[in-house]
Amino acid sequence: MAETTREIRLVSRPDGAPVPENFELAEVELPEVGEGEALVRNSYLSVDPYMRGRMRDVKSYIPPFQVGDVLQGGAVGQVVASRSDAIEEGSWVLSLQGWRERYLSNGDGLLTVDPSLAPVSTALGVLGMPGLTAYVGLTEFGRPREGETVFVSAAAGAVGSVVGQLARIWGARTVGSAGSQEKVDFLTQELGFDAAFNYKAEDLSNALREHCPQGIDVYFDNVGGDHLEAALGRMNGFGRIPLCGMVSLYNLEEPPPGPRNMAAMVVSRVTMRGFIVTDHYDLYPRFVEEVSGYVDSGEMKYRETVVDGIERMPEAFIGLLEGENIGKMLVRVGPDAS
Amino acid sequence: MAETTREIRLVSRPDGAPVPENFELAEVELPEVGEGEALVRNSYLSVDPYMRGRMRDVKSYIPPFQVGDVLQGGAVGQVVASRSDAIEEGSWVLSLQGWRERYLSNGDGLLTVDPSLAPVSTALGVLGMPGLTAYVGLTEFGRPREGETVFVSAAAGAVGSVVGQLARIWGARTVGSAGSQEKVDFLTQELGFDAAFNYKAEDLSNALREHCPQGIDVYFDNVGGDHLEAALGRMNGFGRIPLCGMVSLYNLEEPPPGPRNMAAMVVSRVTMRGFIVTDHYDLYPRFVEEVSGYVDSGEMKYRETVVDGIERMPEAFIGLLEGENIGKMLVRVGPDAS
Repeated sequence: MAETTREIRLVSRPDGAPVPENFELAEVELPEVGEGEALVRNSYLSVDPYMRGRMRDVKSYIPPFQVGDVLQGGAVGQVVASRSDAIEEGSWVLSLQGWRERYLSNGDGLLTVDPSLAPVSTALGVLGMPGLTAYVGLTEFGRPREGETVFVSAAAGAVGSVVGQLARIWGARTVGSAGSQEKVDFLTQELGFDAAFNYKAEDLSNALREHCPQGIDVYFDNVGGDHLEAALGRMNGFGRIPLCGMVSLYNLEEPPPGPRNMAAMVVSRVTMRGFIVTDHYDLYPRFVEEVSGYVDSGEMKYRETVVDGIERMPEAFIGLLEGENIGKMLVRVGPDAS
Repeated sequence: MAETTREIRLVSRPDGAPVPENFELAEVELPEVGEGEALVRNSYLSVDPYMRGRMRDVKSYIPPFQVGDVLQGGAVGQVVASRSDAIEEGSWVLSLQGWRERYLSNGDGLLTVDPSLAPVSTALGVLGMPGLTAYVGLTEFGRPREGETVFVSAAAGAVGSVVGQLARIWGARTVGSAGSQEKVDFLTQELGFDAAFNYKAEDLSNALREHCPQGIDVYFDNVGGDHLEAALGRMNGFGRIPLCGMVSLYNLEEPPPGPRNMAAMVVSRVTMRGFIVTDHYDLYPRFVEEVSGYVDSGEMKYRETVVDGIERMPEAFIGLLEGENIGKMLVRVGPDAS
């Protein structure tokens, strides 16, 4: 009897916030490992906010998911069988090949993960795409100088938590917003943010006045909407706003009005810059060397919110968009590296 | 009997669009020319959109005008008497000292104008601050490459008309919006724009789709508001939006919502950058050398809308904000260089 694996498919496009009924768990046959192929057993699957955008049927920088197809995202797994000279059995690999437990690969698009560097799950978080996103946004666009104030939204998330810590390590004053008191405590007590506040409990503009008394030099925007308007109103001259994504808008069918204070862009000579991490993979080696050093030394901390079982993937994704995670949201579907 | 001169004062802050009653013409005594001083007779006074901002009582990059004070702006005039070794009688000078016919100066803030280079009025327009604004916005922030599409709003104005022509000279496809068919004809028939449209007669998004079939690479924004939203929706990947000012908002008491499509900043990796020309005076020599060459060769054309008599200054300013000018709006209060 043929072996099978399980995968998560999109069965309908979400209308507003995704619901479990938009997804299905399917069991599919796993063909024999062919010549030049390897079988990978995933251990961690990544859920990321940008995937919400791919569930819309619109042209974007990345093609939309098709209804009926397996959902794609980052995954870390181990090669459990190989008939390829290029893929070593027992090695760990990162793929973007789908929300599935196991898969065959001919090696295309696989990246090797070094399990001795850090837990393999970090290849999806602090040492993976979210960490690189933070690094690119700060080094290429935000460029905080010592003593400047860096404000980051969704600060307890996978990207935001790296942004704040990098800015702190590089000598900036770091301020974060997050959606619960528990996250605020995490930012100030565990990650060393200079200040943080719960945007659901405070007026954004007041909070920024209080926590950024010298104004904002870099606003790393993960959410758009109200946050962008409030931060723009507090920017110092020649401030920089890297735009990484606008998670506050992802579940809305109609985008809300943009910042009412766009004229502040001129008055304060602000630069706003949208970027996509995939344009900057050339920085990956520099990033991983530098940031794995910070992780190693304990200067950079990270947390993961782990949900067990591929069948809970939709729940994890829905929860991510509701801000239920602290740090990187992961779904565990296999063993860690021993 | 002491000599007198006339000046325009702000007597009340405009509430929405300025009205003649916000201004008054005053006759003031002109003291004798003191040791180290010179008497300048102005020939051209400049009205500029940014002055509307200075009529509000808010902190900005430049202090607000005070009620009762003479209004300040660019002016070109001739030194008609001098008791200063540094200021030559008969020479032409540019000042920012006020909407007045004549004034005394100790030389502070005066810039010499070379009347052999071009008509002296151009020191307030194509070879002055508006021209430099266009030059800075394009060379520092827009950076159009050959074959790219540059869209500019308020394209028939003092800044916009230089933006479009520089972009054309540097090999870009140039598209402009303006508020009348007469201006549209001026852009395409006189200035060599590849395309232009009347934004009052067409839907902005439709017009941009039609006239920018390859998308927009650089949007030079002079107006903000609807134009910014429509242009953002048409930007190509890695597009640049220099923000020079938002004249569509200047007469509004409450700013309108910003672009609803801010997420396009991320998707298309757009850079939006506010700038103020006064931060970039270091580029003035390079600008004047390059652009006076284009004016000389006839590659760069300019037009002026001239109103005669200082008493008509408020009318000229009010008209400027209504878009009644083509090219630079000037008030003539004295003779040209002979």
